[in-house]
Amino acid sequence: MIIGVIGASSCSPEEAKLAENVGELLAQRGVIVVCGGLGGVMEAVCRGAKSKDGLTVGILPGQDSSMANPWVDIPVVTGLGEARNVVVVKSTQSVIAIGGSYGTLSEIAYALKSSIPVIGLNTWSLSRNGQEDDSIIKVQSAAAAVDKAISLAKRPKNYEIASLHSQ
Amino acid sequence: MIIGVIGASSCSPEEAKLAENVGELLAQRGVIVVCGGLGGVMEAVCRGAKSKDGLTVGILPGQDSSMANPWVDIPVVTGLGEARNVVVVKSTQSVIAIGGSYGTLSEIAYALKSSIPVIGLNTWSLSRNGQEDDSIIKVQSAAAAVDKAISLAKRPKNYEIASLHSQ
Amino acid sequence: MIIGVIGASSCSPEEAKLAENVGELLAQRGVIVVCGGLGGVMEAVCRGAKSKDGLTVGILPGQDSSMANPWVDIPVVTGLGEARNVVVVKSTQSVIAIGGSYGTLSEIAYALKSSIPVIGLNTWSLSRNGQEDDSIIKVQSAAAAVDKAISLAKRPKNYEIASLHSQ
Amino acid sequence: MIIGVIGASSCSPEEAKLAENVGELLAQRGVIVVCGGLGGVMEAVCRGAKSKDGLTVGILPGQDSSMANPWVDIPVVTGLGEARNVVVVKSTQSVIAIGGSYGTLSEIAYALKSSIPVIGLNTWSLSRNGQEDDSIIKVQSAAAAVDKAISLAKRPKNYEIASLHSQ
Repeated sequence: MIIGVIGASSCSPEEAKLAENVGELLAQRGVIVVCGGLGGVMEAVCRGAKSKDGLTVGILPGQDSSMANPWVDIPVVTGLGEARNVVVVKSTQSVIAIGGSYGTLSEIAYALKSSIPVIGLNTWSLSRNGQEDDSIIKVQSAAAAVDKAISLAKRPKNYEIASLHSQ
Repeated sequence: MIIGVIGASSCSPEEAKLAENVGELLAQRGVIVVCGGLGGVMEAVCRGAKSKDGLTVGILPGQDSSMANPWVDIPVVTGLGEARNVVVVKSTQSVIAIGGSYGTLSEIAYALKSSIPVIGLNTWSLSRNGQEDDSIIKVQSAAAAVDKAISLAKRPKNYEIASLHSQ
Repeated sequence: MIIGVIGASSCSPEEAKLAENVGELLAQRGVIVVCGGLGGVMEAVCRGAKSKDGLTVGILPGQDSSMANPWVDIPVVTGLGEARNVVVVKSTQSVIAIGGSYGTLSEIAYALKSSIPVIGLNTWSLSRNGQEDDSIIKVQSAAAAVDKAISLAKRPKNYEIASLHSQ
Repeated sequence: MIIGVIGASSCSPEEAKLAENVGELLAQRGVIVVCGGLGGVMEAVCRGAKSKDGLTVGILPGQDSSMANPWVDIPVVTGLGEARNVVVVKSTQSVIAIGGSYGTLSEIAYALKSSIPVIGLNTWSLSRNGQEDDSIIKVQSAAAAVDKAISLAKRPKNYEIASLHSQ
């Protein structure tokens, strides 16, 4: 199973703590973590996942892997700038959004557009034309986020993505 | 001056009316209209702009120009799918969002991230972590949207984009 | 009709001369010129087209329009880096390659893959597994390049791209 | 170390054999294999790598992972169409081209542009303006290709990409 964790490249200590905890729990459940590969929330989730022997993929905006945080196992170098946000989202079966800036908001939008479940921890709320949009599933803890992300993960159509760690 | 108009590929008659009116007013002010080139709001704004002899650019997601609406003068064929949303936004000096679905939300997010002003007509509202984000400038009419979009248009750094029509 | 002109951002005086001449001839025939929007061949073709009152579109790799050459009418800002090469090619009905480096070679490859005719002036030659690939139509003058590019231009499926200048 | 293997989605039995052998040898040397994730050469190299317990990354052009070949461990879903070729190349430290069509040619061009070494097995030859370009390092066997690709692999600037398998 592949789950994305999205959030800003600079974040509060509380958000970093949450992200690290999410990374640990995902790794313990044998889930591959996909993120944007940079600092802040992305770095914290990778650090957490690696502390539990997980596998991390960082989908980077720049021209080489030099900006990847040190806990990225597989740097995917796109050179696409912010258009890489689409790639982060589409490569996942569900995403956990932690805090987040406008980049994160673009990722949430892409996920909802692709019917990829979005679990939110202290993140954006949306309303359209005065009416609330409750597509983002709000939770209050790292454990709840991971539970929801795993139970709601979108099944690939004809391809069983094997968890490398659950083999 | 180049202004973007964003909105869904299917829309209500009221939204289409608003978009057509925005297109007319932009063309009358000599502004080049950039949009995603498809139907709905995109088609209506192009139709409006062409009715006043404007110039329209459609930045398309598909592999060829066959999906462009008939009022697109210059089809830019990206083949990028939804990643073309970034290109729509970055090619503008300000954007007017009319109604809109998750694709439009991703464009709003990209614009705010790039400090490109976003003017909203019956579109998304955002809050983050319980706090309202009022970066989208809400207006109530096509005329107000066009006025705001022109007055707030971001200046290119060292390049004067001449309006072809105001020469 | 929309024709692309591709070549390196730094070029010899002879290549610049050829590109400028190609731009003049395309504009005189009412063709919209699409290019990568930067210097060298791209700048020369835009300068030529504008000297004959043509319309030029520059599809830029960077984050804003500040790198566009001064003869670009419509800067399309992609932020995609070299991935913008796909967009340059797909937006055309045929391309004229003048000289060129590896970026130009990637554009030639994309054009041939999409069955967009490629006319070559002092550009790449290809062979595969020892066998020559003569898909690039080699010509010896700007006039021949423009003639071929217009006569071979790929027709859009269901969309007649009107030349703004031939109306 | 991360090495790319590029080639067409349909290929001759000889090319498939070569690709499978390349995959086996890369896996035995602890190298992560990156490819475009589809059939032909891409499928053969993944099958080879998995037969030796390697790790494979498939960077896919489509909207979901349903087109990935069954030996892809980590499907990166780009939704970018052929623009994903840039991502395949930039994510590697060197690439091995086997046979190949125009898509492969675009990848070779991108690699050479980014100074990523290209090792060729029965693939394209280039000349520019009548002069041969010998940037593609031609070899005659899978073993020679793998040796060259490993010895010439580009070092990331400030980031040591650890081989998961050599730890």
